[in-house]
Amino acid sequence: MKALVYHGPGNKSWEEKPKPVILQPTDVIVRISKTTICGTDLHILKGDVPEVAKGRILGHEGVGIVEEAGAAVGNFRKGDRVLISCITSCSKCSYCKRGMYSHCINGGWILGHLIDGTQAEYVRIPYADSSLYPIPEGSDEDALVMLSDILPTGFECGVLNGKVQPGSTIAIAGAGPIGLAALLTAQFYTPSAIIMIDPDDNRLSVASQFGATHIINNQRENGVEKIMALTANTGVDTAIEAVGIPATFGLCEAIIAPGGTIANIGVHGKSVDLHLERLWSRNITITTRLVDTVTTPMLLKTVTAKKIDAKKLITHYFRLDDIMSAYNTFEHASAQKALKVILNNTGV
Amino acid sequence: MKALVYHGPGNKSWEEKPKPVILQPTDVIVRISKTTICGTDLHILKGDVPEVAKGRILGHEGVGIVEEAGAAVGNFRKGDRVLISCITSCSKCSYCKRGMYSHCINGGWILGHLIDGTQAEYVRIPYADSSLYPIPEGSDEDALVMLSDILPTGFECGVLNGKVQPGSTIAIAGAGPIGLAALLTAQFYTPSAIIMIDPDDNRLSVASQFGATHIINNQRENGVEKIMALTANTGVDTAIEAVGIPATFGLCEAIIAPGGTIANIGVHGKSVDLHLERLWSRNITITTRLVDTVTTPMLLKTVTAKKIDAKKLITHYFRLDDIMSAYNTFEHASAQKALKVILNNTGV
Amino acid sequence: MKALVYHGPGNKSWEEKPKPVILQPTDVIVRISKTTICGTDLHILKGDVPEVAKGRILGHEGVGIVEEAGAAVGNFRKGDRVLISCITSCSKCSYCKRGMYSHCINGGWILGHLIDGTQAEYVRIPYADSSLYPIPEGSDEDALVMLSDILPTGFECGVLNGKVQPGSTIAIAGAGPIGLAALLTAQFYTPSAIIMIDPDDNRLSVASQFGATHIINNQRENGVEKIMALTANTGVDTAIEAVGIPATFGLCEAIIAPGGTIANIGVHGKSVDLHLERLWSRNITITTRLVDTVTTPMLLKTVTAKKIDAKKLITHYFRLDDIMSAYNTFEHASAQKALKVILNNTGV
Amino acid sequence: MKALVYHGPGNKSWEEKPKPVILQPTDVIVRISKTTICGTDLHILKGDVPEVAKGRILGHEGVGIVEEAGAAVGNFRKGDRVLISCITSCSKCSYCKRGMYSHCINGGWILGHLIDGTQAEYVRIPYADSSLYPIPEGSDEDALVMLSDILPTGFECGVLNGKVQPGSTIAIAGAGPIGLAALLTAQFYTPSAIIMIDPDDNRLSVASQFGATHIINNQRENGVEKIMALTANTGVDTAIEAVGIPATFGLCEAIIAPGGTIANIGVHGKSVDLHLERLWSRNITITTRLVDTVTTPMLLKTVTAKKIDAKKLITHYFRLDDIMSAYNTFEHASAQKALKVILNNTGV
Repeated sequence: MKALVYHGPGNKSWEEKPKPVILQPTDVIVRISKTTICGTDLHILKGDVPEVAKGRILGHEGVGIVEEAGAAVGNFRKGDRVLISCITSCSKCSYCKRGMYSHCINGGWILGHLIDGTQAEYVRIPYADSSLYPIPEGSDEDALVMLSDILPTGFECGVLNGKVQPGSTIAIAGAGPIGLAALLTAQFYTPSAIIMIDPDDNRLSVASQFGATHIINNQRENGVEKIMALTANTGVDTAIEAVGIPATFGLCEAIIAPGGTIANIGVHGKSVDLHLERLWSRNITITTRLVDTVTTPMLLKTVTAKKIDAKKLITHYFRLDDIMSAYNTFEHASAQKALKVILNNTGV
Repeated sequence: MKALVYHGPGNKSWEEKPKPVILQPTDVIVRISKTTICGTDLHILKGDVPEVAKGRILGHEGVGIVEEAGAAVGNFRKGDRVLISCITSCSKCSYCKRGMYSHCINGGWILGHLIDGTQAEYVRIPYADSSLYPIPEGSDEDALVMLSDILPTGFECGVLNGKVQPGSTIAIAGAGPIGLAALLTAQFYTPSAIIMIDPDDNRLSVASQFGATHIINNQRENGVEKIMALTANTGVDTAIEAVGIPATFGLCEAIIAPGGTIANIGVHGKSVDLHLERLWSRNITITTRLVDTVTTPMLLKTVTAKKIDAKKLITHYFRLDDIMSAYNTFEHASAQKALKVILNNTGV
Repeated sequence: MKALVYHGPGNKSWEEKPKPVILQPTDVIVRISKTTICGTDLHILKGDVPEVAKGRILGHEGVGIVEEAGAAVGNFRKGDRVLISCITSCSKCSYCKRGMYSHCINGGWILGHLIDGTQAEYVRIPYADSSLYPIPEGSDEDALVMLSDILPTGFECGVLNGKVQPGSTIAIAGAGPIGLAALLTAQFYTPSAIIMIDPDDNRLSVASQFGATHIINNQRENGVEKIMALTANTGVDTAIEAVGIPATFGLCEAIIAPGGTIANIGVHGKSVDLHLERLWSRNITITTRLVDTVTTPMLLKTVTAKKIDAKKLITHYFRLDDIMSAYNTFEHASAQKALKVILNNTGV
Repeated sequence: MKALVYHGPGNKSWEEKPKPVILQPTDVIVRISKTTICGTDLHILKGDVPEVAKGRILGHEGVGIVEEAGAAVGNFRKGDRVLISCITSCSKCSYCKRGMYSHCINGGWILGHLIDGTQAEYVRIPYADSSLYPIPEGSDEDALVMLSDILPTGFECGVLNGKVQPGSTIAIAGAGPIGLAALLTAQFYTPSAIIMIDPDDNRLSVASQFGATHIINNQRENGVEKIMALTANTGVDTAIEAVGIPATFGLCEAIIAPGGTIANIGVHGKSVDLHLERLWSRNITITTRLVDTVTTPMLLKTVTAKKIDAKKLITHYFRLDDIMSAYNTFEHASAQKALKVILNNTGV
């Protein structure tokens, strides 16, 4: 089969690899119909995730068709259409039992990381019964690719951890795909105001179309001042950090109202200053989270019921065997006005 | 009347002051029976709380007897025995309605801070209906002084924010009065293990008597290593920071288990390093809080029902007019093996 | 002034009454701009609420302008435009401190019940600081009348108690004003399906326009069978009872899914059969609640932010001095296709 | 092997049966070390549970040693000491993912009900990875038998559902084993008062020893009057129904305070009167639940940490092959002053 293989920092190729086989009775082999590229894949290619070995097939998102199911798999059989979760859950360890699949001692984020991933014609999915989801009849599968990772990440790490509530005021620092996923899913809870902050005017314009009530270009404007003015100098109830750098965390610290929550989604590369000398008495909460995908069943229901248009996040379409072009586009996301790309396995 | 007056950093005296009078119909004048000294009073005397004006009467804790009640006071009348909350709550602003009395726009922590306090023969209590509590018949009033500030602080900022649960493992950094208050109230929820960390052997020994299951002297021992060993290298479910310095916050960051909570009680003077590069994916929560005293009614019930022995925190007793000696003892708490002192107004 | 006065079962008149005066320093006198009629007023007129004395002015909803404020009122002054809550909260008793204003020992539902109400040119509001809300500049005051009672009732007793969540499936038994208020506010949480059940086709048609995803006329159709079919024979996550008779409670019992919640809004006149022989093992929750209006500030934000169109509930408009006609229309709600009426005090 | 076999109402025998074998790769065969008898077993023997087939081996509690593990079992291997949960959880269905193991579509309560149970020398446990728990080194295995069913039932259905909190007032109707299990586990949350109601003086005396603060013999005394007097006529915050008859449910309705919770544990055979005409406005919650055993890991921690003395519930010990005598004792529990019995497989 063909697959996108990592060969060390800066190096990847679309090449022939052996088709995966069942290793454990709980495995399923999925023929990929559609996959996508995540910002994390770019991090891996920069060399930021050293535990990814050379020769690894990348990718942790996608939908496909069950090709073969191991003997102990109960929920799926050959021919079933399935959504692949970016998080593998054994369902039996103490973390899985608490709904913290991200910290599964037998799984977690392993696809395209510690084992071969989804940017390929086939992929092996361990613990398939609890790591795949059946695709409802008549679903738009492009939309469902957004449920592998980006929508649950924005929802769980940003919206749920951020305790977004009807009538509340929220700010999202970063209008990239993940910030926009938080924006879309925040609207499940009907906040009064959603303020998006980003230096890219195109992304801010997209944010407006996606439901932001206010947009701030923090390259041209003073984000803190503007948000404090918008909130009668009180600050926001929820600040969602969706970039992963000290500056945007600092912004969140500066605009959080007493009693508010800073929910971190961004992947950070270094420590940040936590201003406890100012915040110790302000009754705030700060959260971190690697997506657990524990809300995938709920998100599937909202997509099926057309309560969210997940497809809005998709800007570009490619053939799977043209994945090198797709990477090129995604690596120049700002210039290309790219959010998420869909890679279609036209062989399916 | 006589009162303890702040005259600028390093300067205080027990001196004659005018007896307070009713200024608003919602005020009550309380004759102090018993009061105490808080670590915050020492901070004020060091000059760390610049908004305290010279001439201010210190103190924000105590019990007493209603001397006079304003025309709009409904819950209290002359002769009632009352517990004074360190937090004044107007009960009508948006923060009070949300149970965040600490951020009351008309009150909050004002006693012995922005208005005259309780280290005096009499004190004026604004918004008395929601800032005083009736003392149940037959109560031990020494114990109740611990409910003005220290027990709700340990309980709300440490135990409730830290989400202590039956069977959970908690660590408390700092075995001073406030850490010990967290230790006592954590036991309301029956955690499996409570690890106390402090450099003072006497305080650790007190912690053992108060119910700590493990004690660690972090001057002699490596706290992080020892706690990780005690927890099968997983860390603790709840880490309570009860000191207020970067080192103990750093300890809490190092020992927190995935899914755990760091609850800050300590008053910090500078920022700390938040290691998001390590913690971003660990599903942790960090909280801050100025005590709201919203749990005072619940704590009163537990004290009355003898479910907690609040008096354990009291090590020294003085006459109110000997308050200068009491300050001297409390300022040398470690050498004096002092936790909380009780000042009795023998004139009552 | 003129007022609508109850003279015993079946007897009311629009007549001259003395203008109310300040009795307590915490009172405010409000000049009514707009008021409405509640189903409860009809119950009173039927004699179902015997504690209402003859001579009582009815009404517990409305907006108006402060005419005079007592000496201890801090939040309002003459000329302020205010929303009147149907629930009076003293803010100081143990129930108020827990957010259970409905059980306030000094207030609760007293307007148009134990003291004179709002269907008059003027009304006295006790504990005004915590029982009135300031009207934001530029608000549509017709819409705000819906916030005195019906929207918080539908939201608190139905939606919040019913734990409506994104993606969940809910059924509402009863498409009268209160069921429709639950329908409107349920959408704050983006459920996947909202099934309305009622015997009145007009009301079901209104429900469809208001966002119901399915409607069932339970006079013509078997509600239980149809709902079980719609839910793959599982039942609904939330069943909201908005009628108050044994039959609709029984319906809710029959359609509730394992793990689901039956939230009662209806005012019941007799006991119902609780089928514990079937439900004991089904992990269900049943709730009751008299509206606390603790969510009024949140609802005000959603109305101001145009996240809910509260005016949809208003079908008829009258002059306040034509209130006898308004009662006539409201008493024949089904024939008149009436939901809520607005009574305008054109003298304002 | 030998086993206790149900032969229809009133009919059981200790007889030879084939030793169970692995049927699915997720099965484990456990050699029983200790088991017990549940009130439910008596119900089965009365014929109250018609889905139990003649020839069924009874029992759903116990500890043992893994004799053989299926190919897909990851958490256990031959020789491991294990605690058997009364609830079988597949860990993959939608109910299991929500922590509602009791409604597992592949399991739930099946042991000694729909498949052969634990009152035997060997038992087959399906979905062993999520239905067995490893026994910590050095545990008292008699105590752990109480964790198969009775302690999680009292805790989940009574204490957790009843939202017992520090300082709250609770009543438990029924001082049988299950009511006593609720009493023991309620103390995890340090309520101020625990009132036990039962007609049996011996059980009430046991309840006092187990931590009840008040006991009421409702054969000799008026339970409602006495509880209302004890609670200043307010009622209790939590009422736990642990009998399963209309009279005790009615008691709970009569004594529940506004804002309180009635948590049902009892197995009911017929419907009860729910007095909505009185309760509709009282902000109460009523819950039902079949134990999920989702708290077994937490309870294991509290037992291991000696925070609860589960062994207190055990009054009688028998050899497993003397189980007919054990049944005789348990069937005459009141006369025998029996709570739980332990059956030791001395062959192990």
